[in-house]
Parts: sequence; C-alpha cells; structure tokens
Amino acid sequence: MTTTQDLQPQPTETEAPPPPPEEAPVRRSAVSRRGLLGAAGAGMAGLAAGAVGGYALGSQETASSPALSPGTRTYPFYGEHQAGILTPMQDRMHFAAFDVITDSREELVQLLKDWTTAAARMTQGLPAGELGPTSGPYAAPPDDTGEAIGLPPAGLTITFGFGPTLFGTEGKSRFGLAGRQPAALQRLPHFPADKLDPLRSDGDLCVQACADDPQVAIHAVRNLARIAFGRAALRWSQLGFGRTSSTSTSQATPRNLMGFKDGTMNVKAEDTAAVDEHVWVPTDADSKGTWLAGGSYLVVRRINMTIETWDRQPLSEQEQVFGRTKAEGAPLTGGSEFSQPDFDLQDGDQEPLVATDAHVRLVHPSNNGGAKMLRRGYNFVDGSDRLGRMDAGLFFLAYVRDPRTQFIPIQTKLGLGDRLSEYIQHTGSALFAVPPGIAEGEYIGQSLFA
Amino acid sequence: MTTTQDLQPQPTETEAPPPPPEEAPVRRSAVSRRGLLGAAGAGMAGLAAGAVGGYALGSQETASSPALSPGTRTYPFYGEHQAGILTPMQDRMHFAAFDVITDSREELVQLLKDWTTAAARMTQGLPAGELGPTSGPYAAPPDDTGEAIGLPPAGLTITFGFGPTLFGTEGKSRFGLAGRQPAALQRLPHFPADKLDPLRSDGDLCVQACADDPQVAIHAVRNLARIAFGRAALRWSQLGFGRTSSTSTSQATPRNLMGFKDGTMNVKAEDTAAVDEHVWVPTDADSKGTWLAGGSYLVVRRINMTIETWDRQPLSEQEQVFGRTKAEGAPLTGGSEFSQPDFDLQDGDQEPLVATDAHVRLVHPSNNGGAKMLRRGYNFVDGSDRLGRMDAGLFFLAYVRDPRTQFIPIQTKLGLGDRLSEYIQHTGSALFAVPPGIAEGEYIGQSLFA
Repeated sequence: MTTTQDLQPQPTETEAPPPPPEEAPVRRSAVSRRGLLGAAGAGMAGLAAGAVGGYALGSQETASSPALSPGTRTYPFYGEHQAGILTPMQDRMHFAAFDVITDSREELVQLLKDWTTAAARMTQGLPAGELGPTSGPYAAPPDDTGEAIGLPPAGLTITFGFGPTLFGTEGKSRFGLAGRQPAALQRLPHFPADKLDPLRSDGDLCVQACADDPQVAIHAVRNLARIAFGRAALRWSQLGFGRTSSTSTSQATPRNLMGFKDGTMNVKAEDTAAVDEHVWVPTDADSKGTWLAGGSYLVVRRINMTIETWDRQPLSEQEQVFGRTKAEGAPLTGGSEFSQPDFDLQDGDQEPLVATDAHVRLVHPSNNGGAKMLRRGYNFVDGSDRLGRMDAGLFFLAYVRDPRTQFIPIQTKLGLGDRLSEYIQHTGSALFAVPPGIAEGEYIGQSLFA
Repeated sequence: MTTTQDLQPQPTETEAPPPPPEEAPVRRSAVSRRGLLGAAGAGMAGLAAGAVGGYALGSQETASSPALSPGTRTYPFYGEHQAGILTPMQDRMHFAAFDVITDSREELVQLLKDWTTAAARMTQGLPAGELGPTSGPYAAPPDDTGEAIGLPPAGLTITFGFGPTLFGTEGKSRFGLAGRQPAALQRLPHFPADKLDPLRSDGDLCVQACADDPQVAIHAVRNLARIAFGRAALRWSQLGFGRTSSTSTSQATPRNLMGFKDGTMNVKAEDTAAVDEHVWVPTDADSKGTWLAGGSYLVVRRINMTIETWDRQPLSEQEQVFGRTKAEGAPLTGGSEFSQPDFDLQDGDQEPLVATDAHVRLVHPSNNGGAKMLRRGYNFVDGSDRLGRMDAGLFFLAYVRDPRTQFIPIQTKLGLGDRLSEYIQHTGSALFAVPPGIAEGEYIGQSLFA
C-alpha cells in the first residue's frame, strides 16, 4: 500500500538545477501510472474480488521504469504556495467551478480534506484513491475512474480557489465565514461591453488542473467532481488546449487564436521581485484576510473572439489593433518582441505609430501605474454556435495580488476604449481567492477554517 | 516561393521501414513551420508592406533544421487512399461538418480545389496559403490565420467526405449529382434510443483533421472554414482529445472515459487483407458509386456517457456491462486483452460468464457474420450541461466498406439490447462517403465530378 511518505517530493532524485524556485520538476519514475501498470497488469489475470494492490506497488518497480520523458515530470503538491501558479505552464487545462450544496461547515471541511488527499495523489501520478480503478471491493464503485491508467503524471498541477459566494450571499453568512471575507474578494463588477453567461460565471469553489496531457487534466477534474458528490456540484467547466502565455523565461511566447503572440509582458517565475510585488498576497493586506497571506487572487474571464470577422481583416488592421507586428510580436515602433514600445513616436502625419486605442498602449504597465499580472490563460474552441460561427477564444486566467488595483481599472479602460473590443466578447467571469500552499498533514484552505 | 514540387513526399528522405503500407511517416524537416520561422523571423524586422517570402524559404534551411522529433512527422497528402484513415491514430482531432451554401456546381468544385491546395500545404507543415499569415499585401487579409506559426507539422492529416445531402434533398438533385449517389450513402436510420441533436448531425461535407498537437488540428479546420466563406458554412464541429482506438499494431489500446480499453478488436492497418475486406469500397460495389472505389464510408456518432451514473457503479457491474476486465481488458472468460471470449462458458449457476447483453457479445465479429470496422474515434469533454453533468463521451468514427452490412445491423442490435445503453446516449449522427486519394494536380473528389 502507498504510504504518505511516497507522496512527498524527494529532492535527492531531482535532476539538474531547478529553474523557478519552489517549482522544480521532481522526476520520480517510481510512482508513474505507466510504470505501475506494467507490473500491476501482469499480476492481475486472476482479478475477481478483494484488493490486489492495484497501482500501489513496492519500490522494486524503480529498476524497471522506462526512460524519463517529459510526460513523467511531476511537481510537488505541498509547499509554501500552491502549484499551478508559478509552475512553467503546461500545455493543456481543465478548469471547473463548483457550487457547494451542503450547508454543513463540517461537510465542507471534509470535502476539502478529501480533495487534498486525492489531489496530492493524482499530481504524483497515482490514482485518486488508494485502491484505484480496478481493485478493492468488487461490489463497490472504484475509487478512481480509470481513464488515466497507463498515462504518465504529465506534469499535473491542481490549484484550488474560493469564490466570494462561499463566504455569504445576499448579506447572509455561509459556513460562519462572513467575518473572514477579504475586502478584495467581491464579484467582479459589470464592465462595459460585458455579455456574461451566468452559467459560465462565478462559483463557490474552483479547480484549475493543468497538465501536458489533456486526458490527465480531465481525469483530475472528473475525479474531484466524483468525490464532491452530495457536497458540491459542478457549476461550469472549461477545457483549454494551448497556453497563451509563459510563466517561465524558459518558455517561448505562444500565440492566441488571433495569431498574435500573447503574454509577452507576463510576470515570470524567475523574476522573484515581480512575483512578490504582483502575485502573492502579503500578510498585512487585509485584517479579515490574513488567512490568504501567501496566496493570490485568480481572475477568470472567458473571452470569445469573433474569429470569422477577424480572419477577414487586413494584416494592417490586425497589427494596429494590437500595436505589435504579427510575425515577431515587436511593438510597431520597432525592435523585437521584448523591446519596449515608444508611445510618443509619430509618423509623418503626426499620427502615433501605436494608435491611441491600440491594445498594447492601454494595457502596458507604464500606462497603469506599473501594474502587472501573472497570466496563465489558454486557447479554447468549444465547437460552433447555431449560426456556424466558431465558439472560440481565450480563457483568460490571471493571478494578482489585488484585483482592485491590477485588473479592475485596466479592464474598465479596455471595455471603454480598446480597439480589440470590436473583435472580442467577454462571456464568462469569476474571481477566486487562492489560498496559500500547505504542508503535509494539512488540507487545502486550512488557514481559512482554523 | 514554394513550388508544388516542395509538397511532394520525397521517399528518399524517409527513415526506417514504413509501418503501414502507403502511410509511412515522411520526415521532412525542411518544410516545418518551426524551422522556417526561425529564419523568417530573422529576416522580418523590416516587415511593412509586400511579400518578403514569409515561411517559404529556400533549401538552405535544411542544414540548420532542428533535430527530428515526433512533432516534425508528416504524412503524404497525395496517394491511392486519403490519409487519416490507415494513418496511425494521432492524439487529437478536430472534426467539422459543412453545409454548402452555393447552388453553383462550379463554385463547389472550386471550393474543393481550394481546399485541396490548402490541405496539401498544411499537412506538410506549411501555412494554408502561399503568402502566409504575416506577408503579402498589407491591406489584405492574410491567407493563413497564424496561430500555428512556430508549431511543427505534428503529423497532421486532413480527410474529406461527402454527405448524402450533397447529392440531393427532398428528391431534388443538387449540383447534378443525383445520378451518382451510391445506394449505401443515405442518412443513417433512427436507431432505438437515439436522441439526436440535428445541429450535431449530418452535413454536406466533412473534414476530419487529426494531429498530435490540438492547435495544429484546429488551425487546419479554421483555415478551411475561412477559405469556404460564401460557398460553405460550418454546420457543426467537435474536438476530441484522446484517441479511443488504435489503427496500427504499433499502438497500445487506449481507454475511453468509462476507464475501459476501447477498440481491442479494431482493424489494423498492417492487416492488409482485413483492410481490403472491411474498409475500402471495391470498384464493382455500386453502378452509381464507381467514383468511390478506393474510398470508404465514414460513420460518425456522438455518444454521450452519463459519467456521474457510471462512476457510482460497482466494478462488477462495470465489467459485466462490457464483458471484459477493467484492468487488462481481457474477456471475462479469461486470458488477456487479445484473447477471444468464449461465449458458451458458464458459471456454477449455469449463467454465461459473459452476459447475454454484454457489449462485447453483441458487437463481436463472430456474432455479426464477421463484420469489423476500422474505428478512429476520440474522447470528448465539452464542459458541463445546465445541471452540472459533464457533457462528455466518445466521438465515434468508423471507416467501413458498406454501412448497410457493417454498422447499421450492429447498431440496431445495440440500441435494442446492449447493457451499455443504460449509460450512454447517442446525440449526434452522420454518414459520409470518403472519396479515394488523389494524385498531384487532381482535387479531392475529382472522380465524382469528372
């Protein structure tokens, strides 16, 4: 059987100098589902009733493990901060928001404990429960759903957050938490041009699962939803298939579905001063929110793009909308991707080279009191709508120290004057407080309930 | 500029013995988007107006190409059969069905010619158009949308099909094609327990894009939709993230979202006798359908799973539904995954070990006159529905020589008596005739219009 010890990162097995602090990939072949399956399968011919060990094999497995590949990467679940924030962005994402359907504080806490156990296991490549998908009492449902059998950990991280409605609704406290709701944790305001679908917005709890294999991320959310049965119900969820920013200087800047590089100015994990300034909530931020110190706020926006309209715009219009070249992502005032734009530069007609309503001008930190965010969004395509238009765009995720200074003023400005607004529509919105990381033996959000 | 010659597979560059016949991965680093971007980027600082060569660089690029990786794999677009049928299944899929909105046969043919050109390019890792996403007339829309800049070809295949409605609707011929509609190309019948969404069903044309990178598959469908503007409109589309069968003996059997191995009995490309018997339409199949010789029929079914109900079933029930073990995928009558079930074997109470309504019993070739299919389906998760249930399941794709003998009788039987029916619901349905492959200079479906 697996012991808790097996779930701990073992720094002695770490290879090479870790790139971002506290987020080093810990490569532990001993616990991969793939490695375990080989041996488990061999001993399973007589599977009928009773526990036969499932995935949890002994350490003899290490010797026969396959060569390490990117899929075998794991990140520690426990730590000062939750994983999945500074972690170098994985390629795929499944995000889910839940409504708590119990009124019992005790049941809510137990749910968080159960989620912690399952998340600590799954992020290390283990099944959600100890017995796994094919063992245990034959007349009982398996404690893992099984679709990730044979898949490697794929760098899975699972990050949890609490929505404002968890603390109370309509002035009524929930779970005795009203006195602990930070002032910044409020439903995001209605921004100009918002066209929000309430069933793609808000939620009491959120789960962000990121991995390099979509089936691994989906398996994580699906098992957490299964575990929540009777206590919390899935409110909405979103799949993302391609990252739209980088959280590490080791990653190239990816492209959004408009074909432009996205997230060039992102806060990177290696810039610890910027991370401290823009991402982590400090101890003294809020007298009600001391439990959130070391955590962050997660801003979620589902942003549809009018793909068909965009695709018929001239290259010149596309570049002027962003204020950057499409090929290189350089500011229209010259240089390369990471060159700073010169907003004063004009052409022969005294027109600014970067238009006054260009996206880069409105969002640039130099025009927003230095405000930056750690963006972690993904491209999405959810088929097509009833008119044959692609239901596609950018699922915007950003971690900030305080949404009141880092997101709300900028989004207000964008909603009023961004030339990009012509081609996008915000269809979902949520804000979550993301509690700090935990040590082994603790549960996610423990500082809130302690 | 790129010449047509560049698009041809160059067998002299092929490495290692090709696994499935006519589907050998041709690794051609010279044309990868990633390789080209590096050099293109360097020469693009002065990008303003006019063509600067874009992605289409000369052969000097070959020398500096990065090391080959799975992402750099390409498959030939031209050949006796369309790629994307026997091709070893890629990991991700974007499927789209289109309605033709022009009445002009000439415009329809031109669309197929334009699609052929773009597909031949994109499958070789080139942008959809010659100028690419960042070059050409600055005041005109780019001829590629750009989100795949820097991504490798990722083994992209694009496969086209024609629905029955292309030939005529309500007894009225379309495009002069009524006389060429094969008898087998009819809307699939309504099966017992079908609950079809008309807006996830049917279509005049279909495109199946498969690749190992979802952004590459999505880029392909999106550019074909863009090119179709004014001639065909997207009717519906579906993303799939994990393959649910194998088309090559070199691939392990993957798992569906019920956690079971799927497609164990699939026709594999290496079994050329089975492929000839079950997949390709023969020359003498149908006097109206001679143009389809060397092609196939594609059966499409969107099958939702009631995930939450399934996850609460005991392991015993789950295994009895399929008639196989969950861990290994072996028949409940013993052996390993590829052992044949013994349907006569009984337990001590004279009950059959594989229940009379078990899925494997109903679909097994031995109980269906030897009928087999080449399945090529994918897992899907499209978020959750308004009740918080996952909108998830299996997007079933199967290539058959004749749907009247290989799919319709089996599905009729399943709809009436399959124990699995309790946990699934068919929500989408379509049938397409997939024309044979073409030679360079021809266009997809040319045999139909010739």
